[in-house]
Order: sequence, then structure tokens, then C-alpha cells
Amino acid sequence: MSASVLPLRPRGTPSMAGLMALTGPGLTAVNHVIIDRMQSQVALIPELAGHLIAGGGKRLRPMLTLGCAALLEYGGTRHHKLAAAVEFIHTATLLHDDVVDASGLRRGKATANRVWGNAASVLVGDFLFSRSFELMVEDGSLKVLKILSSASAIIAEGEVAQLTAQRDVETSEDRYLEIISAKTAALFSAACQIAAVVAERDASVEAALEAYGRNLGIAFQLVDDAIDFVSDSDTMGKDSGDDFRDGKVTLPIILAYARGDAEEREFWQEAMRGKRTSDEDLSHAQALLQSRLAIADTLARARHYGARAIDALAGFPKGPARQALTETVEFAIARAY
Amino acid sequence: MSASVLPLRPRGTPSMAGLMALTGPGLTAVNHVIIDRMQSQVALIPELAGHLIAGGGKRLRPMLTLGCAALLEYGGTRHHKLAAAVEFIHTATLLHDDVVDASGLRRGKATANRVWGNAASVLVGDFLFSRSFELMVEDGSLKVLKILSSASAIIAEGEVAQLTAQRDVETSEDRYLEIISAKTAALFSAACQIAAVVAERDASVEAALEAYGRNLGIAFQLVDDAIDFVSDSDTMGKDSGDDFRDGKVTLPIILAYARGDAEEREFWQEAMRGKRTSDEDLSHAQALLQSRLAIADTLARARHYGARAIDALAGFPKGPARQALTETVEFAIARAY
Repeated sequence: MSASVLPLRPRGTPSMAGLMALTGPGLTAVNHVIIDRMQSQVALIPELAGHLIAGGGKRLRPMLTLGCAALLEYGGTRHHKLAAAVEFIHTATLLHDDVVDASGLRRGKATANRVWGNAASVLVGDFLFSRSFELMVEDGSLKVLKILSSASAIIAEGEVAQLTAQRDVETSEDRYLEIISAKTAALFSAACQIAAVVAERDASVEAALEAYGRNLGIAFQLVDDAIDFVSDSDTMGKDSGDDFRDGKVTLPIILAYARGDAEEREFWQEAMRGKRTSDEDLSHAQALLQSRLAIADTLARARHYGARAIDALAGFPKGPARQALTETVEFAIARAY
Repeated sequence: MSASVLPLRPRGTPSMAGLMALTGPGLTAVNHVIIDRMQSQVALIPELAGHLIAGGGKRLRPMLTLGCAALLEYGGTRHHKLAAAVEFIHTATLLHDDVVDASGLRRGKATANRVWGNAASVLVGDFLFSRSFELMVEDGSLKVLKILSSASAIIAEGEVAQLTAQRDVETSEDRYLEIISAKTAALFSAACQIAAVVAERDASVEAALEAYGRNLGIAFQLVDDAIDFVSDSDTMGKDSGDDFRDGKVTLPIILAYARGDAEEREFWQEAMRGKRTSDEDLSHAQALLQSRLAIADTLARARHYGARAIDALAGFPKGPARQALTETVEFAIARAY
């Protein structure tokens, strides 16, 4: 599969090392806010939240807020609370997603809903979501509140749209891009945009960071969609074929279906109706995706959005922050190879 | 059961008529905001939200915001959006509660999760919750945002606490009151308190309305707890014994257990462990509650909080608004008789 894929640049494996170095001290402060504010007298709340928050989260979205603030040479600390608020929103959506998808494994661990049940996952998600708004209110910027409350509504809309399209293999590529722009990219873009707000930069800077985050988010999701068909739980912390078995129509399937003959389309329709969930069915799906170049072209689409994300940074001065944000995009894409 | 109960006042049956008359035009404006802002390109959202919002909701919490604003002779319109935000928070918690409780009937109709599934209920709840914050952000008061984001976090904490205590028949009355203060009364109190904020009244007015709402909310919940054992779905729109069958420990059970002999305690323990869910078991539970005066004394507690709610209004001028808010308390309690 990787034979038809060109790397973004002819150099070493991209990594998050630059962003991690850039945001390290800030991330420590963010982690303190996160741990402090997920506490509650109700012991189940920090217990369950900690399972997801303390355990293995990459803090990608908070790192984006911090990285964008560094790009703007923001010297304050307001973004620590706000980056924690972004992570709480993300964690709340993960908790609810696992209930919605009836998933059992995330980041290589049993999901919270499998350990504590759906009810606790729903309610602790609600708690973290409320807590995130409390953090924003403490910061006091109505502009940030507007960006993140709007992003939250868009995420939920995207999730419902995905649910509606869940087993509809005739979902168009356009519609699918709308869905992932909402459910995944909206929080990436908000995480980046709020850095411009706290740094008190003008609308063009906000727009550039919003575009960076949005395109990165779309690329990130498309790569995740591809990874679902190529990974196993040992390497990716996620069961391979989870999306497939859940009847979740993602871009690889959309492409393979559109390009497939009648027999292949029949297979995808049955699969999305939940009638093809065996290991053999998954292997057959992988073979069809391969023959129709569906994974390779999903990754080509991801590279397109990745390139746009990198171009959105063109107006910012060159330096370690821009370099780190650029490499983050390259890393997001390289995960699939 | 009603033999041991004295009405609050020796006059006609209390009703919501006063509050409805007082808030009628305002409620029309609030309903317009609600209908307008629950829309989405994703058709399932207004469909599912409308099932609950359009269908049979009493709009009690928005009416409290409007009624308290009338008490303060507030002449603006800001509270319309905020009352809609309160109703959205309430609706979101109902959608999630039905998933948490695996309920099948609410307000005499099949619950949304039964019709559309848990996933849709979780996600549409998230959408409405986000939308409520968007409405608050549009209003632009950080004080209101603080009150309602804090209330939302407290509600979620209360729900998790109730989940933790769910089958623990040794839950103390104190702990139970903490739980319902959080899960029910926090939104009542916030709905009332924000009227003082939009009317730009001082902290003592805020505190008085907060106390009115909080005590009304506790009374309201205790009466609901009692009604669960005396109603049937035809009269109350809720299955009788739902709480009992769900193993939900409420004040009637806490009192009956505390006052019961070894055999009765054994019964309650088994019931809360889910081993007593037949109609005969419910009848036996009702007989035990009767013999231990548990319903009558739950209602006596409710009257105590109702009296405190009414007393919290003592500093406000007499007139139709204060009268309407007073009768609302009396009506909340009279529902059980």
C-alpha cells in the first residue's frame, strides 16, 4: 500500500518532538489545571475522568493551543486554563463517543463505558463539559466562549450527522468531509484560533490559525480512517476494523464503493448493514480497499489538507514554533505509514 | 395517605394559573427562541429535540426566570434567551437521564432513547447543551455564564452521586438531600437567580431568589419521589414504581428502611438490588411505605422546603408576581394529593 505514496518531504521521519519541546513547560501547567479541575467530592468522577485524561492522552489539542500561542510569542498564562478547557471538551466527547459507538477499546485500554458502564460515562462527560465552560468563564473572554461554545455545538451536530449516515454507504465524499469538518476539525480549529484571541491579534491571524487547525483536523481524521483498516490493537491502541464492524462509513469505504463493481457494492452494503463482521469479512474489505486504491487515495486527500494546513502558516515568521506546527502536520500524516 | 396531611392553606386547590398568566407573553417569546435555536441542518436534531421540547414540557424553569423577572419589574427582553438556555440545559439532562436510567416513558410518551436509540439521545443532548451556552454568550453576561456553567457542573456531579448511591439503601437522608440539591434544585435556583442578574439587582436579591429556587427545587423533587409510588402512567405521564424498579433510592425508601424491622430492611435491600421488580413487589413496597408513614413524611419534608421557598420571597413587595411564585410552590406540593 505504501508503494504508491510519496512522503511530504525527503527527510527523516516526522515527529511531534518539536511541538513537545516547544510546549513542554506550558503543558505541565495545563496538566496541573486538568488534574486540579477534574476533582470532585464524588469519587467516581476523578476516577473515571482520570482513566482517560491521565492515562495515555496525547494532549494534542492543548499542545496546539500552546504551540499557536508560542507562534504569536504570547507571554501570558491565560491559555493554560483554556487549553485545559479544550482538553475537557475533547475528553467529554470521547466518553460520549464510546457510549455512542459501544466501543470497548481506546488508546489500548478498555473504554470507560466498558469499565464503569454507559451511565457513568455519559454523566462524567457532562461534568467535564460543564467544567470546561467554568474554566472559560474564569478566563472571562466572551470571544473565546463564543468560539468554543460554537465548536461544541458543531461537534455534536457532526456526531449526529455521522450517526444518521452511519450505515449509508452512498454517503458522498462531500457530505463525509462536512461531517468530519464538524466532528473532528472544529475542535482543532478552535484550539488554534483561541491562541490568537488571548494574544490579542487581529482577525486575519485568527483566520489563519483557524484554517491551520481545521485542515490539520481533517487530515488527522482521514489518516485515522485509514489506520482503522491497517492497524491492530497492539500498535495503535485501537481494534483494527472497529469502524468497519460498527458500520461506520468512512472515506476509504466511500471511495471503494464508488469505484467498485456490482458485487463489491453488494459486499459494502451488507457490511454496513452489519452482516459482515467476521475476520474474513474484514480481510476481504482490506483486499477490496487495496485493489481500488482506497487507502492510498484517502491518504492522498489527507496530504492535500495537510498541505493546506502548512500553507496557512505562511504568513507567520519562520522559527521553531512554525517549524514545530509544520512537523505536527507531517507527523499526523506519517502515522499511517 | 392524605389523611395525615394538612394543606398549606385552607383555600382552593393551588394552581399554576397565576404564574402562567404572569409569564404568558414572555413564554411565547421564549418558545420562539427555543424553536428557532433547536433547528439544525441535521434533521434528526430538531426531530428528536422537538419530541421532548415541543411535546408536553411544562416550561417550569423558564417560567421561573420570567416570574422572578416580573417580581423585579424587569422590563427588558434579555431573559427570553436566557430562559431558553435554561430549558435547553434541562432538556439535555432529561435526554441523558433517560439513557442513564434506561427509562421508557416520560410525560406519558415513549422516551427519545426508546424511539431513536441511546446514541442519538446522548448526542442531541450534547447539542442542546452547547446551544444553551451559545445563547448565554450572545446575551454576554459573564455573571449569568458563571451561574449556569456552575449549575451544570453541579447537576452532573449530583447525577453521578445518585448513580453511585443508586442501589445503596443505607444512603442517609442528609446525603440524599445533597444529591437532589445538586441534580434538581441547582437548575431551579439558577433559573431564578439569573433574573436578578439581568435586572441588575444587588447580591441580597440574587441570594433571595437563589434560595427561593433552591427550596422550591428540593420540594419539587421530594414530591416527585412520593408521586412515583402513588401515580400511574395515565395520570402522571410516568410509570408508577419506575424509581423503585430502577433500584433508585429516594427519600420514601430511606425513611421506610430506617424505620423498618429486619424483615422490611431485607425486602428493601433485595428490591434495591433489583430482585423485587414485580407488581406484587411494588404493592408490598407501597404497603410498607404506608405503614411507616414514609410517603406522608416525605411530603412533610417537602412542605418544609416549600415554606422556606415562600419565606425567601418575604422581602419582595406583595403583588401578582409574588402571589404567583407563592402559588407555584403550593402547586408543586399539592401535586401529590
